[in-house]
Parts: sequence; structure tokens; C-alpha cells
Amino acid sequence: MKFIAEIQVMPQKEILDPQGKAVLLGLKNLGIQNVADVRIGKNIRMELDVADEAAAREEVEMTCQKLLANLIMEDYSYQIFPA
Amino acid sequence: MKFIAEIQVMPQKEILDPQGKAVLLGLKNLGIQNVADVRIGKNIRMELDVADEAAAREEVEMTCQKLLANLIMEDYSYQIFPA
Repeated sequence: MKFIAEIQVMPQKEILDPQGKAVLLGLKNLGIQNVADVRIGKNIRMELDVADEAAAREEVEMTCQKLLANLIMEDYSYQIFPA
Repeated sequence: MKFIAEIQVMPQKEILDPQGKAVLLGLKNLGIQNVADVRIGKNIRMELDVADEAAAREEVEMTCQKLLANLIMEDYSYQIFPA
């Protein structure tokens, strides 16, 4: 069965995010004043072909921990849905 | 009123994604074989302080078009919810 996983990997709250700060400055320069904070991370879209949703979840969890996220500095979250 | 916008900026389908290809190769090296495709883009979390959800939507739309996405090569989508 085919599933699509959308994974978000974001810098942890305590970690400085210079890319986000740059975008915040860019927004002010565009005249957009009412944005309080911007944080930038990665969005990963994975297509999996596994038996069921539990297997998809397990595989995505493993992928996040071993490959996609640096757990010292980043948090991850994901959504899985049938393709 | 405070809102949080989660914005995904992804390379368009026709555009090569070398970062995604690298992750796919990494997955194979980890022994994970049943992933068909990986694409990597940005996930942006913005905190806005605006009057209502319509205003938030307008602001996020403008931000995506003017600053966050390169519309020649990237697509964007977003979700807005109260903080």
C-alpha cells in the first residue's frame, strides 16, 4: 500500500535560527511589521510502499531518527496519509 | 489576534531535487528499500499578530509570493491556526 509522509524538521526552540531572522528582516523591509517570529526548517515528502500505516509510521520514525533530524538541535513531526 | 502559519515550500514536480536524491540513497544504505521517492523543501513557521484569519491569510500569501518561494521553481502551501 502506498503512503505519503510529510515530515517537518525544525530547529529546537532554544537554538538560534539565523535563516529565520533573515526572513523576519526581509519582511520588515517589505513593510510587513506584524510578524513576531519566523523559524525555518525542512519539509520532507516521502513516498513509501509498505504493508500498512503502522509499518509506514515505524519506517518514518526510524528515518527521522537516523537520517533526517539531528536530535541535539532539531525536533521532528510528521503526518502520514494514503497516497 | 495571534496566529501561527506553517508554510511548506517544495521544489516543483518537474524540478530535479538532488538533496532528496541524496536522502533516498542514504535510506538505501540504511537498508530501507521501500521508499519510492523523497523530496525536500522548506518548512517555515511564522507567528503573526493580525486582526483576523482573513488578514493572516492575506499576509502569508503575500509573504510566500514576494519572499519565501521562487515561483518559477517552487510551489507553496500553508496552514493557519490560532496561536
